[in-house]
Amino acid sequence: MKLRLTPRETSFYDLFAEQADHLVVGAGILTELLGAGGPENGAERAKIAERMRAAEHAADDTTHKIYNTLNSSFITPFDREDIYALASTLDDVMDEMEEAVDLVNLYGIQMLPAGVAEQVDTLVRAAELTAMAMRKLRGMKDLTEYWIEVNRLENAADQSYRKLLAHLFSGEYDALTVMKLKEVVDSLEGAADAFEHVANTVESIVVKES
Amino acid sequence: MKLRLTPRETSFYDLFAEQADHLVVGAGILTELLGAGGPENGAERAKIAERMRAAEHAADDTTHKIYNTLNSSFITPFDREDIYALASTLDDVMDEMEEAVDLVNLYGIQMLPAGVAEQVDTLVRAAELTAMAMRKLRGMKDLTEYWIEVNRLENAADQSYRKLLAHLFSGEYDALTVMKLKEVVDSLEGAADAFEHVANTVESIVVKES
Amino acid sequence: MKLRLTPRETSFYDLFAEQADHLVVGAGILTELLGAGGPENGAERAKIAERMRAAEHAADDTTHKIYNTLNSSFITPFDREDIYALASTLDDVMDEMEEAVDLVNLYGIQMLPAGVAEQVDTLVRAAELTAMAMRKLRGMKDLTEYWIEVNRLENAADQSYRKLLAHLFSGEYDALTVMKLKEVVDSLEGAADAFEHVANTVESIVVKES
Repeated sequence: MKLRLTPRETSFYDLFAEQADHLVVGAGILTELLGAGGPENGAERAKIAERMRAAEHAADDTTHKIYNTLNSSFITPFDREDIYALASTLDDVMDEMEEAVDLVNLYGIQMLPAGVAEQVDTLVRAAELTAMAMRKLRGMKDLTEYWIEVNRLENAADQSYRKLLAHLFSGEYDALTVMKLKEVVDSLEGAADAFEHVANTVESIVVKES
Repeated sequence: MKLRLTPRETSFYDLFAEQADHLVVGAGILTELLGAGGPENGAERAKIAERMRAAEHAADDTTHKIYNTLNSSFITPFDREDIYALASTLDDVMDEMEEAVDLVNLYGIQMLPAGVAEQVDTLVRAAELTAMAMRKLRGMKDLTEYWIEVNRLENAADQSYRKLLAHLFSGEYDALTVMKLKEVVDSLEGAADAFEHVANTVESIVVKES
Repeated sequence: MKLRLTPRETSFYDLFAEQADHLVVGAGILTELLGAGGPENGAERAKIAERMRAAEHAADDTTHKIYNTLNSSFITPFDREDIYALASTLDDVMDEMEEAVDLVNLYGIQMLPAGVAEQVDTLVRAAELTAMAMRKLRGMKDLTEYWIEVNRLENAADQSYRKLLAHLFSGEYDALTVMKLKEVVDSLEGAADAFEHVANTVESIVVKES
């Protein structure tokens, strides 16, 4: 019979996987938003924003569960500050994705520039990779590919973002429209950055523990 | 006779109360600014900005006193990093409030949208609650109501902020005016966020210590 | 014969000096950019941006060397978190300087307002002072003048920045141009702020260790 000396450790891994799963849901909702453009889809976009808000609340609950578990755990599977950092960077991704959807509704934006689809595709892929990585966290193995790929995705996202900025300021849009669209595009870029922060945090945890 | 083994602990509580009192002063100055609109009150607004700057410097002094006390204290009433975090989040509130007043003067803004008064009322209330909470910090008791109420206020502030954004982009203002007003409104929203960070920091300190 | 018990300590000081030297290079490239205005110098500005990108990558490499050394060192010359904070604030300066040059190219800005030269002069001076200070870090002596002077420079930079903002919003520029120029000016102001953070980090290290 094998004794489990540190029963509480389990839940951190499960909760990180849960957090990443919320991000997969969030990235999926962003994809739906892209398919709901035009003046006729205002009500549809409002519904999508509502579901995004619900997803963000669910993610918040998971984040708070991690913080509470951390505060009440005597033994943790890795450094307390790293657990805190990982939970809070995962939470940042969701906040940025939710903000993007929220702003589209708040400003009544009916059409997004084509480049936004590239940004969203990158986020969908990063969310999937992150969800798989969280499941490998316990073993602390085979994570190198994950953070290399997320860093590559972030570089690609950066290129899309820069092309979008140049497009926004090209003179095609009036100043108020540029301001509105830029906020949406900035939030999505913020989400890609936050995915990279998650990967960097995972890398530093693995380096320390190995 | 009772010996005091940790005489230095006292000053942290006093200094946190002092920091919060500066915030009550700052929020009061914001209220004065709202009453000094119009082209005829430019000189009055400049004077208000000067007093705000003085209040911000006084708050900075208190923050540095906390950092210095922290660096020279062998024993602290709670975790060093939590003392640092509490002092620096309290300082953030003041910075955001001062920035709002400063921008109004720098950009020569003569009138603020009505929704700004809602933002300021929330800040006044949050400052009062924070000042009371800092006085309860030593006992680590009866603080639950404080952080629930500050979180509620931040949600209300968030609603005011979103209504203000929609109003700014409604077409009533030209693009340059939107840019100027948005910076002021963003600073005030930043102050409300910072009050929530203070409350979250207090909550995490109480959870740890209890 | 004197034994060296902590051979690894050396490299941290060398690496911090290396990081600061990258900042001197970066500030020099900013000065070159100022001399390459006008529609006829677009290709020149693109080349300058390329060199800035290279300088930023070199700085990144140094930063990662510091992080890796930190992760693999059992003994460090001062607190691990302070080493981390110093490396990451030095890195922030470079990121902001690189962003400024990048945006000038991305937005095709052909002329910068005169006040930008004041901002850049301040950055050149702050970079030189920081490079000298990093070389005094081992001795932990004669650093007071450095952080007083960098704080003074940051206050001067703040004045230049505020004058620039008032100028940008004076009505001389159209809204889209204001948005583009403000991003450049904000990045340079961010670099000045980051230099001050470096100085504050050095101050807090010296206070702790002395």
